Amino acid sequence: MIVEIIEKVRRKESLTKEEIEIFLNGYLKGAVKDYQMSAFLMAVCCNGISKEEIFSFVDCYIQSGKQLHFLQGDTLVDKHSTGGVGDKTTLVIVPIMSALQIPVIKMSGRGLGLTGGTIDKLESIPGYQVYRSEQEMMDQVSKIGVVVCSTTEDITPLDQKTYALRDVTGTVSSIPLIAISIMSKKIAGGAKNFVFDMKYGEGALLKTKEESEKLGDIMKEIANFYHCKTDFLYSDMSHPLGYAIGNRLEVLEAMAVLQGKMKGELLETSISLASKMFMLVKNVTEEEAIQKVKEVIENKTAWNKFQEWISYQGGDIEKIKIEAKRIPYYAKQSGVITNIHAKEIALAAKALGTGREKMDDSIDPSSGIYLLKKEGESIKEGEILAYLYTNKETIPSLDSCFEIKNM
Amino acid sequence: MIVEIIEKVRRKESLTKEEIEIFLNGYLKGAVKDYQMSAFLMAVCCNGISKEEIFSFVDCYIQSGKQLHFLQGDTLVDKHSTGGVGDKTTLVIVPIMSALQIPVIKMSGRGLGLTGGTIDKLESIPGYQVYRSEQEMMDQVSKIGVVVCSTTEDITPLDQKTYALRDVTGTVSSIPLIAISIMSKKIAGGAKNFVFDMKYGEGALLKTKEESEKLGDIMKEIANFYHCKTDFLYSDMSHPLGYAIGNRLEVLEAMAVLQGKMKGELLETSISLASKMFMLVKNVTEEEAIQKVKEVIENKTAWNKFQEWISYQGGDIEKIKIEAKRIPYYAKQSGVITNIHAKEIALAAKALGTGREKMDDSIDPSSGIYLLKKEGESIKEGEILAYLYTNKETIPSLDSCFEIKNM
Repeated sequence: MIVEIIEKVRRKESLTKEEIEIFLNGYLKGAVKDYQMSAFLMAVCCNGISKEEIFSFVDCYIQSGKQLHFLQGDTLVDKHSTGGVGDKTTLVIVPIMSALQIPVIKMSGRGLGLTGGTIDKLESIPGYQVYRSEQEMMDQVSKIGVVVCSTTEDITPLDQKTYALRDVTGTVSSIPLIAISIMSKKIAGGAKNFVFDMKYGEGALLKTKEESEKLGDIMKEIANFYHCKTDFLYSDMSHPLGYAIGNRLEVLEAMAVLQGKMKGELLETSISLASKMFMLVKNVTEEEAIQKVKEVIENKTAWNKFQEWISYQGGDIEKIKIEAKRIPYYAKQSGVITNIHAKEIALAAKALGTGREKMDDSIDPSSGIYLLKKEGESIKEGEILAYLYTNKETIPSLDSCFEIKNM
Repeated sequence: MIVEIIEKVRRKESLTKEEIEIFLNGYLKGAVKDYQMSAFLMAVCCNGISKEEIFSFVDCYIQSGKQLHFLQGDTLVDKHSTGGVGDKTTLVIVPIMSALQIPVIKMSGRGLGLTGGTIDKLESIPGYQVYRSEQEMMDQVSKIGVVVCSTTEDITPLDQKTYALRDVTGTVSSIPLIAISIMSKKIAGGAKNFVFDMKYGEGALLKTKEESEKLGDIMKEIANFYHCKTDFLYSDMSHPLGYAIGNRLEVLEAMAVLQGKMKGELLETSISLASKMFMLVKNVTEEEAIQKVKEVIENKTAWNKFQEWISYQGGDIEKIKIEAKRIPYYAKQSGVITNIHAKEIALAAKALGTGREKMDDSIDPSSGIYLLKKEGESIKEGEILAYLYTNKETIPSLDSCFEIKNM
């Protein structure tokens, strides 16, 4: 039966909901072996699956674990990024939404790959507690309107087990499988409104805008099926977002934006995402939404909310210190910076200590890269282009990260 | 590195010989896990591989174990059937070739699936010894010109390990993988001339003649690469070959053909295959080859060779007895037999005791089905259509095996 189900996918025949349930639940229980699941997933990667099959997958994933339900469910807005280099928008957006009286219950993950996830960034704040029970989450959101904590193991365990296998079997880059993984987690998490920050390009999982839009379309269909509202922002991840790459450095950059000390890409992207989130639950125009978002940044209520939230979860922003060597990287030539390669930067940052290879690897919260210049800016030979922060002995070269053209 | 190799196949990119070696040798040594190999094999099934990649696979498979070399290598002719129901041609052809002074060293396998393999059939002869060392094989072939023994574990261990995994991961029906599996075993076995009996249809692994020819073309290219000569006979396996299905019953049928007591399909197919084999090593026309083959059957030298061979390997044909209940199956209606479904017959035979599910299952040598009528023959309602032989209590119905039309 199990082998026949795999063979059907190989032959591009459709599976019934029952067959998908037998196979996926069998995998969760151990009756279907890893080597059978990986063959099945590869057949899905190569041959694709239908919309109906995707819905059955999502349903199985959600049913495999706990589903959270909050009183504020219908008004909860969640934001999810498909992942990028230097992406710290969550840290900026969460206090903005909370300042706008929109409750935020956000569960995030750790990073596995090149740079840290939101939870790694928050954990780099001394004292910040990432674990919260369902009850604690509800209490905190009623009290201060915001909670950001780690995804618990009892939500979509099927996705967790499958993801670990996909990671080592070359079956990550499948658009339907990515959609199923993201949406099942989000829906089980209890929110009803989602803004998705869809990254594409060199530094992202999907390389082209077309692929990213295809993923967005499937995610939207899944959301519709579960009566959830969505909006999507597509952005190019060929270069890092903002100036900082590395957990603690990114927290500091997010704080600077909330304090009004820093303009530019991170601020603009955060405003776009936050206003989309606001529009999902409030009947306002885009201009009104942007206006509201800018207001809570300018009048510092978002910054105050950030401090209240971090402090409520045990974090002490006064204690955020970069405890690492700072090594300047000098421009090799004069000219205009035409490209900062996200993936190269991420690989260098990982070598400095920002990322992990395996789930139980430790990361150095102070390590990372801070760019002093961005694309389009001029630089002179010998001028400092970036700082590297690390406690390691071997320092990676940033030479392949930058393209500078003599205009 | 391992994951990157899998991803390349998924993206339909070509692998270098070095990448294939790293992956396959890694699997043999355990560095590449079953779940990685099954994802890799499924990607090969879905996306195919190039001719160059196939050659690299075959080379790795051959190099993974022992390669046999015989003094008679260039004149050795081997015959391989892709497997069919009631296929006992090997038992007829081997003594014919030997009677024609063509040395025969044949390694065969056990059956895993519906009916027995050649080794199961020979083992059903009381006393027959299937295990022979390389030295024993050489001694025997110099002495009596023929040896048929079991494939040893040290030949293409990579194929053996892979085949077991393919069987449980829905990755068996891949034409390149089938070609690689067959050819690597054959080439490592030391012969230089091969006639392939390519079966297609309901009772075979490949369902259409086109698929079967595609497999033959790849096998021919592999053989050419190793300077081996080949010929192919394509035949429809929608119905069983001959009258007997079941190990000992099939041995008796082969003996009857060699004794000149039985004409028909088994005799005709055996003559075709044997004359093709003869033509591969002797410079003769097809008519001459057929003439020579018929001669050694008619003058009983092939039958004498059969007795010499079986007896030399310890078998005693006098002791071949069908020790099982014989249950007649009566035709349900009068008419002409338009179809005998090979797969249905094989399933029924397996239920009677002829096949095994797992490698260590035992089989009942006396069990099986003996057809009294074949396609095109007329039958009357209530007339005996077949005999079932079994030592089991539950008797399967043969109703779905036959199509009888009132003409």
